[in-house]
Amino acid sequence: MKNTFGNSVSITLFGESHGDAIGVVLDGIAPGITIDGDFIAHQLFLRRPQGRISTARQEQDSFQIVSGVFNKITTGAPICILLPNKDIKSADYEDVRFLPRPGHADLTAHIKYHGYEDYRGGGHFSGRLTAPLVAAGAIVISALRKKGIAIGTHIKNCAGIQDHAFSDLKNEITLLNESPFPVICEEAGEKMKTAIEAAALEKDSVGGVLETAVIGLPAGVGEPWFDSLESVLSHGLFSIPAIKGVEFGAGFGFAEMRGSEANDPIVWANDGVRTTTNHNGGVNGGISNGMPVIFRCAVKPTPSIAKPQQTVNTGTKEDATLEIRGRHDPAILHRARVVVDSITALVLCDQLALRYGTDWLGGDII
Amino acid sequence: MKNTFGNSVSITLFGESHGDAIGVVLDGIAPGITIDGDFIAHQLFLRRPQGRISTARQEQDSFQIVSGVFNKITTGAPICILLPNKDIKSADYEDVRFLPRPGHADLTAHIKYHGYEDYRGGGHFSGRLTAPLVAAGAIVISALRKKGIAIGTHIKNCAGIQDHAFSDLKNEITLLNESPFPVICEEAGEKMKTAIEAAALEKDSVGGVLETAVIGLPAGVGEPWFDSLESVLSHGLFSIPAIKGVEFGAGFGFAEMRGSEANDPIVWANDGVRTTTNHNGGVNGGISNGMPVIFRCAVKPTPSIAKPQQTVNTGTKEDATLEIRGRHDPAILHRARVVVDSITALVLCDQLALRYGTDWLGGDII
Amino acid sequence: MKNTFGNSVSITLFGESHGDAIGVVLDGIAPGITIDGDFIAHQLFLRRPQGRISTARQEQDSFQIVSGVFNKITTGAPICILLPNKDIKSADYEDVRFLPRPGHADLTAHIKYHGYEDYRGGGHFSGRLTAPLVAAGAIVISALRKKGIAIGTHIKNCAGIQDHAFSDLKNEITLLNESPFPVICEEAGEKMKTAIEAAALEKDSVGGVLETAVIGLPAGVGEPWFDSLESVLSHGLFSIPAIKGVEFGAGFGFAEMRGSEANDPIVWANDGVRTTTNHNGGVNGGISNGMPVIFRCAVKPTPSIAKPQQTVNTGTKEDATLEIRGRHDPAILHRARVVVDSITALVLCDQLALRYGTDWLGGDII
Amino acid sequence: MKNTFGNSVSITLFGESHGDAIGVVLDGIAPGITIDGDFIAHQLFLRRPQGRISTARQEQDSFQIVSGVFNKITTGAPICILLPNKDIKSADYEDVRFLPRPGHADLTAHIKYHGYEDYRGGGHFSGRLTAPLVAAGAIVISALRKKGIAIGTHIKNCAGIQDHAFSDLKNEITLLNESPFPVICEEAGEKMKTAIEAAALEKDSVGGVLETAVIGLPAGVGEPWFDSLESVLSHGLFSIPAIKGVEFGAGFGFAEMRGSEANDPIVWANDGVRTTTNHNGGVNGGISNGMPVIFRCAVKPTPSIAKPQQTVNTGTKEDATLEIRGRHDPAILHRARVVVDSITALVLCDQLALRYGTDWLGGDII
Repeated sequence: MKNTFGNSVSITLFGESHGDAIGVVLDGIAPGITIDGDFIAHQLFLRRPQGRISTARQEQDSFQIVSGVFNKITTGAPICILLPNKDIKSADYEDVRFLPRPGHADLTAHIKYHGYEDYRGGGHFSGRLTAPLVAAGAIVISALRKKGIAIGTHIKNCAGIQDHAFSDLKNEITLLNESPFPVICEEAGEKMKTAIEAAALEKDSVGGVLETAVIGLPAGVGEPWFDSLESVLSHGLFSIPAIKGVEFGAGFGFAEMRGSEANDPIVWANDGVRTTTNHNGGVNGGISNGMPVIFRCAVKPTPSIAKPQQTVNTGTKEDATLEIRGRHDPAILHRARVVVDSITALVLCDQLALRYGTDWLGGDII
Repeated sequence: MKNTFGNSVSITLFGESHGDAIGVVLDGIAPGITIDGDFIAHQLFLRRPQGRISTARQEQDSFQIVSGVFNKITTGAPICILLPNKDIKSADYEDVRFLPRPGHADLTAHIKYHGYEDYRGGGHFSGRLTAPLVAAGAIVISALRKKGIAIGTHIKNCAGIQDHAFSDLKNEITLLNESPFPVICEEAGEKMKTAIEAAALEKDSVGGVLETAVIGLPAGVGEPWFDSLESVLSHGLFSIPAIKGVEFGAGFGFAEMRGSEANDPIVWANDGVRTTTNHNGGVNGGISNGMPVIFRCAVKPTPSIAKPQQTVNTGTKEDATLEIRGRHDPAILHRARVVVDSITALVLCDQLALRYGTDWLGGDII
Repeated sequence: MKNTFGNSVSITLFGESHGDAIGVVLDGIAPGITIDGDFIAHQLFLRRPQGRISTARQEQDSFQIVSGVFNKITTGAPICILLPNKDIKSADYEDVRFLPRPGHADLTAHIKYHGYEDYRGGGHFSGRLTAPLVAAGAIVISALRKKGIAIGTHIKNCAGIQDHAFSDLKNEITLLNESPFPVICEEAGEKMKTAIEAAALEKDSVGGVLETAVIGLPAGVGEPWFDSLESVLSHGLFSIPAIKGVEFGAGFGFAEMRGSEANDPIVWANDGVRTTTNHNGGVNGGISNGMPVIFRCAVKPTPSIAKPQQTVNTGTKEDATLEIRGRHDPAILHRARVVVDSITALVLCDQLALRYGTDWLGGDII
Repeated sequence: MKNTFGNSVSITLFGESHGDAIGVVLDGIAPGITIDGDFIAHQLFLRRPQGRISTARQEQDSFQIVSGVFNKITTGAPICILLPNKDIKSADYEDVRFLPRPGHADLTAHIKYHGYEDYRGGGHFSGRLTAPLVAAGAIVISALRKKGIAIGTHIKNCAGIQDHAFSDLKNEITLLNESPFPVICEEAGEKMKTAIEAAALEKDSVGGVLETAVIGLPAGVGEPWFDSLESVLSHGLFSIPAIKGVEFGAGFGFAEMRGSEANDPIVWANDGVRTTTNHNGGVNGGISNGMPVIFRCAVKPTPSIAKPQQTVNTGTKEDATLEIRGRHDPAILHRARVVVDSITALVLCDQLALRYGTDWLGGDII
């Protein structure tokens, strides 16, 4: 389905970096959910470039809800959200049309689409398309919150600098969701920003790791085998440009653990069962167990850097040197965070709607 | 779709650990592919328990191709493969019916299915169901090989012991595919086995990391955004029990890299373009770039261990201690390897059939 | 998805007429539904050939439930049902291997599968594969009944002879579901049988129309546009061999009606709203309105007839005459009826599970 | 998937009758197809109301291609087309908000969406949404034509008046595709128009039958069982509002035929095989046989009529009388025709892309 994702709740993405507009169709959302335009704007703000640690391209990210909402409440019909492209400098790209940027989709798009791709600013592969994902994500995040399900992500690692671990999930999630540079330890955050600025000065970029927690998800969500919660979440997460790794719970750390350490002991709690540790990240056998769902995403350094790079000229079929003069991000972590939250919310809404029915998420009002 | 996966080429999995039989339906396979029963048996052999480093349950894994093959050649109709369950000791499980094994699907299945699940030996969630996946995988691996696409996996890390890196992919893949304990460095392999046996003696288990390489995949495979090659591969890989992390190319290592290191320089080669490094693991923008596809899977320690563990009694709703007396694996890495290869082959066949049409994989004969 | 159908509740079909076995995987069925083996047998009996008006091939249709059922209750895991093929006379088909039967899939399968198709008895395209559909259908029909939803089909027209119209749906459905030759008017039924026998004597076959009613379906089931109830039902119904037309409510009769006749007046009833007529067959805008769902399927005359027919020899590439000597049905209507009911039940279970969640159908017990 | 349809080539529909805009996302279209804006406008013109036989609502149907097209050529990325709503008179609907129109989706939408639906002008269920379907359809129709595949539809029956049968498909298709009131016999067409005007004068509406022919479709397209060509075409066709019946070839006429009449004799032709008759409408066993694909759609009389009608008041829960004062069509047949062609083209492109790969339709240019 390429640009459509999800079953009961689904999303369809369209647009190019330098086209008239980009957008998204969010389908399957229960009727009766109040749309909070300010919250959508807030989420888009969190995705927008910030100061010296981001690209100079400044999109206002004004958005238009074209359908599916009536009197500010979802109707049950598909919700199309459009975001016009305004601050476009296509000329930046004409020079380098035949010079695919290393680490980017330029070359693979050129091969796959036989040269017909819109090459301006990465075209359909541009990170700019995460803006409509975030707009749609704001709606599903709102819906989940009303059901007591909250999602929060922090920068666990930026340029090798580690943030503190989660320790007080509920409060940390609240704070992270307000912060443009989401870290638990402010001091670590400052070091990260310094590292990003240092890379920017050297015409370079940095990578890192995002860590996400979901609280309030009922036990029993996710399906056996091919639609395991890990399968569907990773499917969505790996759709986000620059994400090159996903791990749940202890993840790659399991390699150094014994089963007796890795297994989470089960105990009886007041309101049911819980585990005393959470090495499995809230998922067993692909199904949520009621503990917080914890996962991490590896984010590669932004491939668009100003340093001269070795590439080829696809027109002349010769080797070439590329110097990118466009506006780019020395780090994408703090902006990617809200995309991760949005995709996570979409996947969870889809799984919840499949499990409990199409009206479930609208249930408070209905 | 729960137990069905794939679009143009798809797989449907069914069965329980202690039922009469388990099996798989492989649909969408091109007509004209010769079925090599010996190769299916070989692949099943690679998945079977081996000596002291595996469970004592010995299934012969005899298989019956029920449909879709006529005169030993695929017809284009769905291929059902059945594997009877023979060496069943259900009594092992009756005692522990109400005692969910930590780290396993027992508890989540119990919650999700309201107590109606087949609890014997993990039921539908048993690792035993990877046997039909491997049988189906053998068919798709064969089909890919005829098109020059080969897949190989080694144990990159077992109990903290590292194998050598890939250095000579073509030959290493050939050797790995013959070996029941797939490592590049035999010495590292011996140390790993020693570590597994040590864990077994202590009634414990170990985890590790599998690393997979795919060579010969054409550039241009995979779709933008939601059906990126990383998305569809990870979707399949996270379906495999015990896999808790997936990373492509440098993966989580990207966190410590600069963009200038991470980007793979592009050069003109005799027959097209290539990159001089492969930090992106053969995938840019979700689309294969013609370089080897490289990914790693984190495998958690087998949750079934003989050590006493803390759990609950779901009948009496009290805390309890569990001592598992069934037959279990102190390590699953060497057996999971062929499951990873099988799922990888399935996903690639699906993507290739979508890109080049339903007959493409049968093309040599037709 | 070719041989898989449905989203939340799905079915995967496999097998060939002359293979070892045929079967089906029914996935997504709620846990906690009691399986009634006698009812499955009863439904298979309704599908089996009957006396002079059917083929002489007599399959006992013994079935084996391989998975997904534990202690006679569904577990929530996929249910695989196998039916062995026993009364096989493949020799009947070797003579005519290169002589595609007019009106059958022989020629199109030969073209599509490049000669690799299993040509014996129609292979994967054989009407025999409706037996596993009926076995799976029995389970979903049972599940619907417990929720007060009943399906019944009668032979509306056989060889031009008309049955009475539905007039007392609830009782008629009960009677039809017990009858091997389902008609409302016994006298019309006798005339139909006479017409079938007359055609058989002339080595010919007859067609007709099946009419189906569904009662008890809640209003609000079905989706706007592409998953309208009519869309998903017709998708399933046209999968049944020999069905060449589907119409809802007045169907093609609407062509001669005015809007003022066609529109069903809406009135307030004790327990909600209803319409005083039902020309729309219980569906408006693709969504059930709470009235009985009524549709008709056109069934073409069985294409396998004993009369000499003009065809080609695909081996010699010459024109040829075909005389079919196998065992065939002069009419398929009375046997196809239970297939229609089964597919209808599958589609409705899928829609209901999507709307109300995966546990809804198991709700009585849970 | 509700508002998304198709696999390899798919369409996502959004919008409401009285919202800002309606639109469609067409995904999976091969790169390299030239977009002919005039042809899109022509197709939209064919769908627009015409004179006295149509509604007075006059939408200019200006359209904006938002994405997926670069320098007037498809890029391979999803194509979003927007159509603004301009000639809106929502006040027409406020009076009748609580009075569901008989035969329409008003009542079922009200039940399904719990009163949150956009009730103005039918909201998301409005026939107005077929405009974006037609815009997207124009692109896929163009793509098919370049591969030699042509689609044409005539009004076979309007208000009981019959058009001539197809006799010279290639020329008739060309002529029909230019005509705003598509009939083969002009005299019949005049009678039909007279009947429509007569109904309009009586504040009523008429129904009819559309007959479609597809020529040039290769043999071997369509899948066994659940994705039979009839299944996927009918799935799409029944998505079109007012279509209540679909039949292929002889369709319901098979009921009165013997097998010996119904079977199409196969003969050897210069370039392969063909049948001497085409009662099966070009499809056997769900797969195209190379003959023209012929099907008919029953179109019910437009439910919006000006005559007083019996309905309920969903606010007061009392019986009520409805007099619709909006602008409506006394017949929809001539406008629905191009929607049928569009959906048919979409389904065929999806099937062809699945069979021959994602680039196949762009093949001429690439």
